[in-house]
Amino acid sequence: MANGSAGNGYAVHAEPKPAPLDASKVTVTLAETLKEVPPPEDLVFGKHMSDHMMVSTYHPVTGWSDPEIKPYGPFMLDPVSSCFQYSTNLFEGMKAYIGVDGKPRLFRPELNMKRMERSLGRVALPSFDTNELLKLIQKLVHVESRWIPNLNGYSLYVRPTLIGTRASLGVAASDHALLYVVCSPTGPYFRTSRMLSLMAVSEHVRSWPGGTGGYKLSGNYAPTFMPQKEAAKKGYDQVLWLIGETITEAGAMNFFVVLQREDGDLDVYTPPTDGTILPGVTRDTVIALMKAHGSKTNLPEIPSTQKIHIYEESITVSQVAQWASEGRLLEAFTVGTAVVVASVGRIGVEGKEDIQLPQHESSMGPVALSLFEKITSIQEGREQYEDWSLVC
Amino acid sequence: MANGSAGNGYAVHAEPKPAPLDASKVTVTLAETLKEVPPPEDLVFGKHMSDHMMVSTYHPVTGWSDPEIKPYGPFMLDPVSSCFQYSTNLFEGMKAYIGVDGKPRLFRPELNMKRMERSLGRVALPSFDTNELLKLIQKLVHVESRWIPNLNGYSLYVRPTLIGTRASLGVAASDHALLYVVCSPTGPYFRTSRMLSLMAVSEHVRSWPGGTGGYKLSGNYAPTFMPQKEAAKKGYDQVLWLIGETITEAGAMNFFVVLQREDGDLDVYTPPTDGTILPGVTRDTVIALMKAHGSKTNLPEIPSTQKIHIYEESITVSQVAQWASEGRLLEAFTVGTAVVVASVGRIGVEGKEDIQLPQHESSMGPVALSLFEKITSIQEGREQYEDWSLVC
Repeated sequence: MANGSAGNGYAVHAEPKPAPLDASKVTVTLAETLKEVPPPEDLVFGKHMSDHMMVSTYHPVTGWSDPEIKPYGPFMLDPVSSCFQYSTNLFEGMKAYIGVDGKPRLFRPELNMKRMERSLGRVALPSFDTNELLKLIQKLVHVESRWIPNLNGYSLYVRPTLIGTRASLGVAASDHALLYVVCSPTGPYFRTSRMLSLMAVSEHVRSWPGGTGGYKLSGNYAPTFMPQKEAAKKGYDQVLWLIGETITEAGAMNFFVVLQREDGDLDVYTPPTDGTILPGVTRDTVIALMKAHGSKTNLPEIPSTQKIHIYEESITVSQVAQWASEGRLLEAFTVGTAVVVASVGRIGVEGKEDIQLPQHESSMGPVALSLFEKITSIQEGREQYEDWSLVC
Repeated sequence: MANGSAGNGYAVHAEPKPAPLDASKVTVTLAETLKEVPPPEDLVFGKHMSDHMMVSTYHPVTGWSDPEIKPYGPFMLDPVSSCFQYSTNLFEGMKAYIGVDGKPRLFRPELNMKRMERSLGRVALPSFDTNELLKLIQKLVHVESRWIPNLNGYSLYVRPTLIGTRASLGVAASDHALLYVVCSPTGPYFRTSRMLSLMAVSEHVRSWPGGTGGYKLSGNYAPTFMPQKEAAKKGYDQVLWLIGETITEAGAMNFFVVLQREDGDLDVYTPPTDGTILPGVTRDTVIALMKAHGSKTNLPEIPSTQKIHIYEESITVSQVAQWASEGRLLEAFTVGTAVVVASVGRIGVEGKEDIQLPQHESSMGPVALSLFEKITSIQEGREQYEDWSLVC
């Protein structure tokens, strides 16, 4: 039987099916000279990159290339690549911690993988099995484990990124792509011990029903920098994003308000995932922990008899102002992968006096502090909870 | 007097002021081998790039580098560059035509320059004097003039692009940037002689009040590709973007509806520039020409006694459907730099029958055809109008 023909006389075509992303095919090329890991006090979020990165490229005919873990370095890209011209770009953010057993571990990474799959569908980029990507991330984190500061509150920030690389000005989806993962050692996000100040902004709107605010697209970020600069000029740390009066996000974080009830319980409000806010991994985590409080687990600073009632409902700045003036508002806080949990001290509203929120010792309210301690304890492997920690 | 000190004893510091973009400092390095210009019938929009590009980079201390016109080639960029991670990217689109005098000319380029300045402010990228950029574009077009097909409807598409190149994951404005201009020979945008079909989409929203739809940001485009793919699957050429029922844009073009009045005049409706639509150069041009019709100039296919009344007002798909069913709707068309003018034949609305628009010979309505002929006549230098044509 001749090559390329079956016994029945028909030619056998190896169907040119694009290759899937396959973690088992990864090649590892280590850097000849390793960088010096900066001392923890010098770490600024996202400034120092580790020695290696993971890369795989997609071609519409051949599919995903064999993944490579190789020395960190620049990409060569055509000036008309889709990533520059049409911003077909998205990313994920996750952290790897050194556990008490000395092993690096990722926190609920499967949620990042699911979200990345949703994001790439929204901008019509080539898809892949995110389980394979997760295996590659574990491998990369393992290779880079010397970069994870073994200190409370320190971790290796992991940034999976997918960009479109179709080299054409034609206004259409990118059928070429570059998938990569880079790592950056990181400490506490806000280097201050005071509570955050937020400036409510409605003139510029971050997201909208039917828009892309519910996806982790790079394009959601560029339009936030100008309002963020204006907020900083006016003395506020971050922007509180509104649609009209309704709160969506704070900076690039999810927002929570805690009310003291007369019966001693707590009511917690946070905007619903209606497409105008990012479905944050930390958001999901704090909701799960508050729901589990008093039954499945306990938050350290909150009596187990004090129930926490969660409402995923729209809230307005006026409501927050009223709750604060009535003395019912116990605390407000923001959550996100980079910051974990940060308390809010005041909210600026155009043409009005700042909304002053209760001040707390250690610059965190009791619920924020409890959640911060609980989550970092699970992330750093000091405590087991569900299957939230994945050893690399 | 020693170097670096003034007579008064104070050290003289040459203030490290970032250099402005300066077209007079351009260096030109021509490619050693020139590409073969493809035959006009092979030209697909944005596929073939010319031999050279213009490049200048911005560094926050030194400012804009001396501009270079040099062989077209890839960029080397850090994986955490702002352009990939946060899509701090924007562009302009303009066309250069060969005039009857054999000289290349740009069409109203100062409007593109003004819009680019607005766009870069919106995403907090480093600014520059756009007059200098325009001089550089003229120079580049002059260098690339052999790429402009000397045929009706053909031109050199010019794509000025500005991307953020700050190499950090910190969520902040990019204080480094890359400004470049590339060129691509192009023919008629839609290679069909039939009228366009549009699918009205409200599930996904391209732009919204307070959003970025009024700026030419790359990030406005990526989210349109998935709905565009769905529209194509259902047999429509382009998406008609809605906010609720209200029409904003068609594909990446502005939208116009023409109604026949009982007194013989024409009423033309187009969405206002309220921040949810791009203030298109062609949009501005067709409005100016329709307003001038019968006084300052005449549209070729329209009697000069037939007045055209323009209304920059919100219109809904239901209104368009009703006007069509009443027989008042003469034509609808889309306009943009790439397409110039294209007529619409039908509009699909979810759960309803397609809105059928009047069919016209030569697949263009009388107003669309008039505008197309008038504009291309000015663009190609066959007719002088205002100072709309800039010789390179």
